[in-house]
Amino acid sequence: MNLPTQEIQIHRFSNGQTEPVTDVVAVEEPLEIQLQYSSSTGQIKKSIAVTMRTPGDDEKLATGFLFTEGIINQINDIEKISSHASDKNKILIVLKENIKPRLLQAERNFYTTSSCGVCGKASIEAVHLNIPDREIKSIQITEELLYKLPLLLREQQEAFENTGGIHASALFDINGNLMLLKEDVGRHNALDKLIGHAFMRNLIPLDQHILLLSGRASFELIQKAAVAGLQVVAAIGAPSSLAVDMAIENNITLIGFLKPGKFNVYAGIERLKDH
Amino acid sequence: MNLPTQEIQIHRFSNGQTEPVTDVVAVEEPLEIQLQYSSSTGQIKKSIAVTMRTPGDDEKLATGFLFTEGIINQINDIEKISSHASDKNKILIVLKENIKPRLLQAERNFYTTSSCGVCGKASIEAVHLNIPDREIKSIQITEELLYKLPLLLREQQEAFENTGGIHASALFDINGNLMLLKEDVGRHNALDKLIGHAFMRNLIPLDQHILLLSGRASFELIQKAAVAGLQVVAAIGAPSSLAVDMAIENNITLIGFLKPGKFNVYAGIERLKDH
Repeated sequence: MNLPTQEIQIHRFSNGQTEPVTDVVAVEEPLEIQLQYSSSTGQIKKSIAVTMRTPGDDEKLATGFLFTEGIINQINDIEKISSHASDKNKILIVLKENIKPRLLQAERNFYTTSSCGVCGKASIEAVHLNIPDREIKSIQITEELLYKLPLLLREQQEAFENTGGIHASALFDINGNLMLLKEDVGRHNALDKLIGHAFMRNLIPLDQHILLLSGRASFELIQKAAVAGLQVVAAIGAPSSLAVDMAIENNITLIGFLKPGKFNVYAGIERLKDH
Repeated sequence: MNLPTQEIQIHRFSNGQTEPVTDVVAVEEPLEIQLQYSSSTGQIKKSIAVTMRTPGDDEKLATGFLFTEGIINQINDIEKISSHASDKNKILIVLKENIKPRLLQAERNFYTTSSCGVCGKASIEAVHLNIPDREIKSIQITEELLYKLPLLLREQQEAFENTGGIHASALFDINGNLMLLKEDVGRHNALDKLIGHAFMRNLIPLDQHILLLSGRASFELIQKAAVAGLQVVAAIGAPSSLAVDMAIENNITLIGFLKPGKFNVYAGIERLKDH
């Protein structure tokens, strides 16, 4: 039952004290689920899903996905399951010769959604979207400023949210003024609404702002933030391993577990004043 | 900034007391994003995404999605945005005549993922998967049993989870014994791993079990639970409006905000003993 975690070096801030410590984040990696089945024209092998998952139990994840999405009905439909020795992020499920997956109807309409891990990306290898080249003006932020943000978000959220089931994305200027707040049942939608709002008003890149996420920071949220030109992303919750990688790769300051008086810096410490 | 919420009638349990009350849940509905652009063969109009969202800010959500997914680069690429008067869950974005969306490469690989709202479903209209017909043996559960479950989950989670960024799905028998626990950075993956495990061992339908979700209950989690034949789903967090609808439609007892001494019943109260 050991779930893979990854040790990383972070900076922990606590009321004016800073220390470099070793922390642990949940591993997030893409899994490509491939299906092979026979048709009148021979064997067909295709990718049917890519999901951002924590490695382990990949066979169960893949068969569970096929079953809960209605593609197969019983375990006996499966001839064999092969992992790729050279690539742990691919798994192939081969169906028995007479079994037709219920893909035909679905296939035409395999929609992407904004909550998809790597939807719209050409492949696992090309998972990192091209970020537009543009002038970005550097910024510095203070510890004190960051401590204020969760309270400012909470004040606004309390005013119109009493369902307990909503994610928020908030945009602050570098003086800590709340500029925009968007909410949604899907965390990716909340961020797309916020970036879409700025995009429609020609405010991209958002290089003079701080993005605050009400929950965890996943890979795809950091990717969307990078496309919008954000340099600082703070999350109330934990980041995943791939979110940290994405932040480093795109030179984004990534802050996690932000509360009044405390936070962790996972990447881009140089934007914190006096660091 | 008023986010749509929906009033529903629930039963609130609190240490042996039960009262029917009116509660509020976050609205979750599908939005189909359609894109129209010109090609050498004329105008092309196609659905490029369906996302489960909270209605409101749909134009911002749709344009933000196109931008953050790299399909368009600037707001000037857009000729107009039309909402469908007859269907608020569809939005059409028309690009200017000379603008080519960066779909060609992505399109081939618009993967579905297990975190997709309605991935793999033929259309919004057909969003509800066919649930297999089968014999389901009815069960009854007690208030006391439910109160124990969050602690049992927590005990196990603490043993191997210290990242703060992991969702869990747990399966209990009707005596409250923890049978299976799966974790993942994606809530849908945790549930697919759990159902996949049971599926590979021929334990479907899971009609004599209780499913516990560590976070919120979305539409798609309830849908997956329904496919697996579960009759009782309890969530530590809030359900969405569509999750409640899905539970009612599939005759599932849906419990939310489960803590020791307290929970809400959103559907299927008849499986609670003495109700």
